[in-house]
Amino acid sequence: MGLILADDVLGRGLARVQGEVDAAFDALLGVPDDSRATLVEAMRYAAIGGGKRVRPMLLVTVAEMYGAERDAAVLAGCALEAIHVYSLIHDDLPCMDDDDMRHGKPTLHKAYDEAIAVLAGDSLHALAFEILASQHVSTDPVIRADLVHALASASGHNGMAGGQVMDIAAESAGADFDLHTVTRLQQLKTGALLGASVEMGAILARVPEDQRGHLRAYARDIGLAFQIADDLLDEEGDEELAGKALRKDADAGKATFVSLMGVEDARAQAQALSEQAIGHLVQYGEEADLLRALARFIVERDR
Amino acid sequence: MGLILADDVLGRGLARVQGEVDAAFDALLGVPDDSRATLVEAMRYAAIGGGKRVRPMLLVTVAEMYGAERDAAVLAGCALEAIHVYSLIHDDLPCMDDDDMRHGKPTLHKAYDEAIAVLAGDSLHALAFEILASQHVSTDPVIRADLVHALASASGHNGMAGGQVMDIAAESAGADFDLHTVTRLQQLKTGALLGASVEMGAILARVPEDQRGHLRAYARDIGLAFQIADDLLDEEGDEELAGKALRKDADAGKATFVSLMGVEDARAQAQALSEQAIGHLVQYGEEADLLRALARFIVERDR
Repeated sequence: MGLILADDVLGRGLARVQGEVDAAFDALLGVPDDSRATLVEAMRYAAIGGGKRVRPMLLVTVAEMYGAERDAAVLAGCALEAIHVYSLIHDDLPCMDDDDMRHGKPTLHKAYDEAIAVLAGDSLHALAFEILASQHVSTDPVIRADLVHALASASGHNGMAGGQVMDIAAESAGADFDLHTVTRLQQLKTGALLGASVEMGAILARVPEDQRGHLRAYARDIGLAFQIADDLLDEEGDEELAGKALRKDADAGKATFVSLMGVEDARAQAQALSEQAIGHLVQYGEEADLLRALARFIVERDR
Repeated sequence: MGLILADDVLGRGLARVQGEVDAAFDALLGVPDDSRATLVEAMRYAAIGGGKRVRPMLLVTVAEMYGAERDAAVLAGCALEAIHVYSLIHDDLPCMDDDDMRHGKPTLHKAYDEAIAVLAGDSLHALAFEILASQHVSTDPVIRADLVHALASASGHNGMAGGQVMDIAAESAGADFDLHTVTRLQQLKTGALLGASVEMGAILARVPEDQRGHLRAYARDIGLAFQIADDLLDEEGDEELAGKALRKDADAGKATFVSLMGVEDARAQAQALSEQAIGHLVQYGEEADLLRALARFIVERDR
C-alpha cells in the first residue's frame, strides 16, 4: 500500500522514505533456516509495506536539514518505526483493542496467532535498540547512546506505553476525562514518539540542545493536530480508505477531542495547530518544505 | 520471597544483589499521580521481590572481578533483570504458557489484567534500555552503547525471543526435535541472556575482547546446565517449592533434555557441565567464588 500523493512534495518525500525503510527492514530481517522462520516472517509481515512512515520521514528530514548522512538517518528511522510497529501489533491484540484489520490486511495475530504476535512485537522492540546501538547508525558512541535514551524514554511508561494505559482508563472513565487529561494522554500516546522523531534527527545531526526549541515546538503541535485529526477521522472517516475499523471510540463512549470539543471546534483547533507548527519553521528555507507539507497534510488527510 | 541459603557464599551473594536490585527498581519506578499509576504499580509488582536475581549477580560479580564500580553494575543488572521479568510476564500470558502462578504469587495478568500485563512487559522492556543509556551506568558512551547492543541482540529474534518461538515449535514438533535442536533452542532461550550477563559485566569493567573467552565459555556451560536442571525440576520438582506449575512439558509431549536423554543421563550431563564451567575459572582466585558457587548450585537446587 502507500499514499497516492505522488504529485506533491509530501507524497514524493514519503514514497522515498517508504522505499528506503522497506529496503532496510528487508536487509535487517533475513529469514533463518530453522523454526524461528515463522517469527521473522511475522516481523516482516508487520514491518515491511504499509504504514505512512511519517516518523522516519520526520527524522530523516530534520537530520538532512542539518547535514547528517541520509543512510544513517534511514536506519535510525527504522528503529523508530520498529517501535511504532511493535506498539500497533500489541495494541491490536484481543486483550487490547481487538482489531482484525491494519493497513488494509489482517492484523498480525489474525494472520499468524497471538503468541507469535506478542513475540514478533517484542522482537521488533529489541531490534529497534539493536539498530541504534550499531556502528551503522553512527560511529560516534555519544550519538548512539543519546539515540537509545531518546527512543527508550519516549516509548516506555513515561511515554507511549504510559499513554496507552491512560487511553484504556479513558474508556472506563468516559466523561470524567477532561480536555486537559485527554491532551496529556495524547501527548504521551502519540506525541512522545513524534517528538522523539524530531529529537533523534537533531541528535544525529549534532544540533546543539539550545537550538532544538522550535523543532520541539513543531513536533508538539503536529502531534496534537495529528491526534485531533485522528479523532475526526474516527468519527467521520471512510473505513475502506482507512484500512481499519472506525467509530470505535464513540461506540465505547470514550472521551476524545471530538467528544469534548465537538466536530467544528476540533477541526478549527487542528487547523490552528497546523498553522502554528508551520510558524515554528520560519527560520528555515525550502529544506523544511517537507515538514510544512506534513503539517498541512495531517489536518487534510482522509485516511 | 528469596532463597534460604544465607549460610553459604552464594546465598549471601544473591541476598545482597536481591536487596540492591529491589532498591534500585524502587527508586526507578516512582508511581505517578495520574491514570498511569496502575501501569507502574504492575511493573513494581513484577519487578520488585521474587526472582533469584541470578543474572544481575553474574553481571555484578564479573564487573567487580575486574574492578568496575558496584553501583553502576547493579544498575546494569536491573536492565538485565527488566528484560528477564518482561519475558516472564509475556511468557505467562494465556496465549503463551497460560500460567497462573509465578514466584509463589499470581502472575501479572491474574493480579491485574492481560492488557496491563502486555503493557507492563513492554514498559519494562523500554526501561531496560533507558537505564543502559543513562549516565548513571557509565559516563563513557562507548560502554553505554556496547551494553545496549549486547542486551538488545541477546533478547531479540536472534536471542531469547527467537528461542521462545523455537520452544513453541517444540511442542507441536514433539519427537521431531533432536538433541542438537533442543540445545540450540535453549542456547537462545536462556543461554543468550545468561551470556549477556557475563558479557555486560566484562563491558562495564573494560575487559579486552580477547580476554573474555573463558568467561563466555563459563556462561555457555552454566546456561546449558541450568536448562537441563530446569527440565529435571519440571519432571521431578515440588510445585510448592518452585512457586509455579510443573510437569507442563511432559504433559504437552514436548521434546526436552530429559525426554531425549532420560533422567539419569541428563543429571550426569548437568553435573559435567557444572564442573566444566568451574574449570573455565581456573585463572581466578576467591574473587570468582560466587561464580563457582553458582555453577554448583544450578545443578543442586530444588526450585
